[in-house]
Amino acid sequence: MSQITRRNALAGAAALTSAGALESIRVIDVARAAAPLGGKQNSGWYRYKVGEFEITVVTDGVSFGPLSDAYVQNAPKNDVNAELVAMHYAPDKTSNWYNPIVVNTGSKLVVIDAGGGPPASQQTKGTLGQFHNNLAAAGIDKNAVDVVILSHLHGDHISGLLDSDNKLAFPNAQLLMPTGDIKFWTDESNASRFPDPVKAQFANVKRVMGALDGKVTQYEGSKELVAGITSMPTPGHTPGHTSFTIASGSDHIIHQVDVTAGMGTLFVQKPDWHFLFDVDGALAEQTRRKFYDMVAADKVRIQGYHFPFPAVGNIEKDGIGYRWVPAAWNPTI
Amino acid sequence: MSQITRRNALAGAAALTSAGALESIRVIDVARAAAPLGGKQNSGWYRYKVGEFEITVVTDGVSFGPLSDAYVQNAPKNDVNAELVAMHYAPDKTSNWYNPIVVNTGSKLVVIDAGGGPPASQQTKGTLGQFHNNLAAAGIDKNAVDVVILSHLHGDHISGLLDSDNKLAFPNAQLLMPTGDIKFWTDESNASRFPDPVKAQFANVKRVMGALDGKVTQYEGSKELVAGITSMPTPGHTPGHTSFTIASGSDHIIHQVDVTAGMGTLFVQKPDWHFLFDVDGALAEQTRRKFYDMVAADKVRIQGYHFPFPAVGNIEKDGIGYRWVPAAWNPTI
Repeated sequence: MSQITRRNALAGAAALTSAGALESIRVIDVARAAAPLGGKQNSGWYRYKVGEFEITVVTDGVSFGPLSDAYVQNAPKNDVNAELVAMHYAPDKTSNWYNPIVVNTGSKLVVIDAGGGPPASQQTKGTLGQFHNNLAAAGIDKNAVDVVILSHLHGDHISGLLDSDNKLAFPNAQLLMPTGDIKFWTDESNASRFPDPVKAQFANVKRVMGALDGKVTQYEGSKELVAGITSMPTPGHTPGHTSFTIASGSDHIIHQVDVTAGMGTLFVQKPDWHFLFDVDGALAEQTRRKFYDMVAADKVRIQGYHFPFPAVGNIEKDGIGYRWVPAAWNPTI
Repeated sequence: MSQITRRNALAGAAALTSAGALESIRVIDVARAAAPLGGKQNSGWYRYKVGEFEITVVTDGVSFGPLSDAYVQNAPKNDVNAELVAMHYAPDKTSNWYNPIVVNTGSKLVVIDAGGGPPASQQTKGTLGQFHNNLAAAGIDKNAVDVVILSHLHGDHISGLLDSDNKLAFPNAQLLMPTGDIKFWTDESNASRFPDPVKAQFANVKRVMGALDGKVTQYEGSKELVAGITSMPTPGHTPGHTSFTIASGSDHIIHQVDVTAGMGTLFVQKPDWHFLFDVDGALAEQTRRKFYDMVAADKVRIQGYHFPFPAVGNIEKDGIGYRWVPAAWNPTI
């Protein structure tokens, strides 16, 4: 219990009185009910400006998992554990973070990736699948969204296009998807060469596409999809995986999306490690090195999908790998 | 404007139809009022557990300033600017972050440091002085606070003990202050050897102490002030400056408070630089090296006051200095 004694208090009184400011000390010992624990986390959104644009990172949450042998395809679990501990994470455990963003350009309200939706929420008991609730907390109306750009067709990016009634979560939005991913994931003959968790993505694409009822527009290559938002093909994680330059005035960021995925910070540090969900690990590694060499040299601020919320920061070279340097949280915008 | 054309859309339709899921593409071009910009930031609180304890970091905000020659006492401004840029900050500008915390031990509700209060809010037009509002956002009742521990007597830690009417902001709380700081700051003969911004602290201590009307308890040395919260003298920044070990069960963190102050991350990287508000720069440096060598070797998680919100993370050795590694934001608690 408290080591503060009456004697300490009186000594304090003497010192204070000598400064002429205070005359007495009252040690308080009011019997009062203990304050209840808060028990809940702050809502998960964070806002910053890029030129005149306003970007709101709206987290979909986190999924924790036991570290499986397959999580890193080409490194032994012991090596992965050693790196987790070196990076101040718990061993034998993965923390996978998911961060859709909303770009308000002043004329268009654009969502980039839609989170894992109700299936993710069910699988994780709500640690994931928080995107729609956090949008509401951020004061963003799903009905006001003009465009949803999907970077690729993994379930943690597209399943949140649907609400729990399997209806369109963004009913007034144009939905943009990369051609390379549509071709790949809607061809079920590709499924057989992948392990189960990847294989399940094919069925999920079929499920979501079915519910979208044709309301999809394709894009490919490097194109200005919305004024100020330009696609940048970054294949490997998936065939059509796409990153985005977001520019307003003289300011810009690059949204890497899944150039590193899963526990993104781990694969930044170890770019030669291939993540379970990288469709083409070697190509993903090549893309990632090229991308990080570029943004490290140019000191360009990047946004990611699988970094810890709010997932905005810089990349630095670190030996043969890289280091994620989160930007400072700005309590104003 | 959008590069999505009818032709792209139709190409998409063909691809999707071949997968059998979709029959048509509708390109949407509804004229709709632009969604207004959000314009405000999320509230500034973040919660995590240490054993059974619940810690809520409740930010007081940020103050931005032009980089003055005096900001780092013993390094030329050019060197400071070079380091700011290397760390991905803007040159010629300081960003000073302020993060009080609230510890709910289950039986006691304890605030550690009270922020800059109404004077800070006035000086910064509200970028600083956000602590009381963020407490409310976090659902913490100022009347329920049992103890406020002050780490030292600088204005950005004590002025928030008072509200805008100059009344006690935590009317039911015992207020604990370190003896070394009370002695130092209430002896105005110490004031003359400091430059103006430091000198002003003496008058502020007199102002705040006067309004507290004797309701102060002193502490010194290494003592368990509240069950689970133990003081750890870390002098230099001020004579009585104190850090805290916060322990519950087998878990603990160390709250460094102002072992590095101002733009804390800068002085972590450059521990030999002496901050304008370090009363004894050489002693502060010695304390900081000893403290960081300890927490880096032990890989102990630390909380800070002057790191970017939420200011919880780890310290790593980096050459002759150190590096701040923020912990991942956990969207659950």
